[in-house]
Amino acid sequence: MKAAATRLSEPAMPLSAYFTNVAREVDAALERLVPTAAAFPPRVHEAMRYSLFAGGKRLRPMLAMAACEAVGGARAKALGFAAALELIHTYTLIHDDLPAMDDDGLRRGRPTCHKQFDDATAILAGDALLTLAFEVMTARDNFPGVPAETLLTVASETARAAGSLGTVGGQMVDIQSESAEPDMATLEYIHTHKTGKLITASVRGGARLGGAQDDQLAALTGYGERIGLAFQIVDDVLGVEGDAKALGKPVGSDTKRKKMTYPAAAGIKTSRQLAADLVDGSVRSLEMFGAEAGHLRDLAQYIIARTF
Amino acid sequence: MKAAATRLSEPAMPLSAYFTNVAREVDAALERLVPTAAAFPPRVHEAMRYSLFAGGKRLRPMLAMAACEAVGGARAKALGFAAALELIHTYTLIHDDLPAMDDDGLRRGRPTCHKQFDDATAILAGDALLTLAFEVMTARDNFPGVPAETLLTVASETARAAGSLGTVGGQMVDIQSESAEPDMATLEYIHTHKTGKLITASVRGGARLGGAQDDQLAALTGYGERIGLAFQIVDDVLGVEGDAKALGKPVGSDTKRKKMTYPAAAGIKTSRQLAADLVDGSVRSLEMFGAEAGHLRDLAQYIIARTF
Repeated sequence: MKAAATRLSEPAMPLSAYFTNVAREVDAALERLVPTAAAFPPRVHEAMRYSLFAGGKRLRPMLAMAACEAVGGARAKALGFAAALELIHTYTLIHDDLPAMDDDGLRRGRPTCHKQFDDATAILAGDALLTLAFEVMTARDNFPGVPAETLLTVASETARAAGSLGTVGGQMVDIQSESAEPDMATLEYIHTHKTGKLITASVRGGARLGGAQDDQLAALTGYGERIGLAFQIVDDVLGVEGDAKALGKPVGSDTKRKKMTYPAAAGIKTSRQLAADLVDGSVRSLEMFGAEAGHLRDLAQYIIARTF
Repeated sequence: MKAAATRLSEPAMPLSAYFTNVAREVDAALERLVPTAAAFPPRVHEAMRYSLFAGGKRLRPMLAMAACEAVGGARAKALGFAAALELIHTYTLIHDDLPAMDDDGLRRGRPTCHKQFDDATAILAGDALLTLAFEVMTARDNFPGVPAETLLTVASETARAAGSLGTVGGQMVDIQSESAEPDMATLEYIHTHKTGKLITASVRGGARLGGAQDDQLAALTGYGERIGLAFQIVDDVLGVEGDAKALGKPVGSDTKRKKMTYPAAAGIKTSRQLAADLVDGSVRSLEMFGAEAGHLRDLAQYIIARTF
């Protein structure tokens, strides 16, 4: 697994057919779960779908589905949860892009939600996606064969990860730290909370839905925490030296806005090494699992190798 | 119950000691459930608490607790749900007040959240309150003695009521309808969705947690739908001829912003009559209940008699 450390400068590693299938299943679920523009009021549903079907990687759903299978569960058990994770992730992107927040006009090569519609619609579309995520996660019919108690635990843990002590807290500190001198403690707080908590919740939730034992859950938590931080560090690095076309947004915008990033705090080389070490560690966390965790191993490698 | 129709111009009817107690229980639960400013990051928690403890009437919690008791449940079973409803309600107020939405600077006599903090903090505080509501509603420990399946149903129904087909949809159409000619169909959509759906969900959820039978749930749904619409009509009337000091905001701001309101569409007198008829109807919906529904009857009267 040491090969991981050398992969960052290589071309994007394509994900296997397995993940193409998973992404298709998740998109089909989202298509079914999110009201169309035929539902009143059309504008908010158009905006929700505009951002939801904008070419996202579906990383969190993939983690949830692969973690479900790693503990021996049929991945269909985690499908509703996987879709809900993408709803939450999309809401965070829409709100983070707002003029009052990061003020980003471009994402994945297209105008951001508030540019395409307007600020009010973007705020409401984000609110509606977040709310829908919890409707989906608590709707019994979306989880055949899963005990009700498990669903409650998964929903509650996911909410905690997405809230003021998780994702929202990370974004709060990120905004407060603009133009501040980079300091590693703050930076690690931002990254583990803004991105890490929800990624860890994706892995844990998928595993719970698959029927994970306590020791499996503990091992997968270690995996999730490491890839969560690695993912964000790679994101920072790509923000400095990635390919604008592949990223779908201008390179260097973090620097311009004086965002606190790993490359700014520790340099590009150290940041890359740190991400590679985290990925190696995440793979070691999976030692107790056999071939069933193969897809989680692939995802860890993908996180370090991705170029957008 | 016909007396209700004459109450609107009288002084505020004080709610009974029962509701003072309920409000105290709800506030204590919120105090316990919402992180203090000692929790990192302090700013988002300060903003959440600033708006949450700003003198709100706690109407939705009262409805949930009273509905729980109306079907014979101990109201402690609905306390976590009651707190969650207030978290959701507070998030809608914070987001609705934003410059990109209704652009209100004053609420309950104090600067709105984005005025006291800033837009980014207000957006994040709202997001965090909404997310926390679902964490609270799905946390098993908050609902001793309630079946897990019931909790899931309540959480999912409440999410549906708060989402794009409910509260968020109502706010979307409200914003889109500014400066438009008042028309009764649009107005009724706005009011039943922006306020009505969550009020109905408060009553239904409280009743479900109390162990409601299907016929009780159906009757209470009729009650909730009627008082939900009545509440918003009275709100519109107070916006035109209320007392600015009691309301904590300037009178006439709806007119100034060309908001579509019942008084604008149907006149003050007809609006009052409509609200009174709805309250009378809501009380009739409670006929199958005996003295246990006394508090719900009191709340219906309060809704028509309130002056702020």
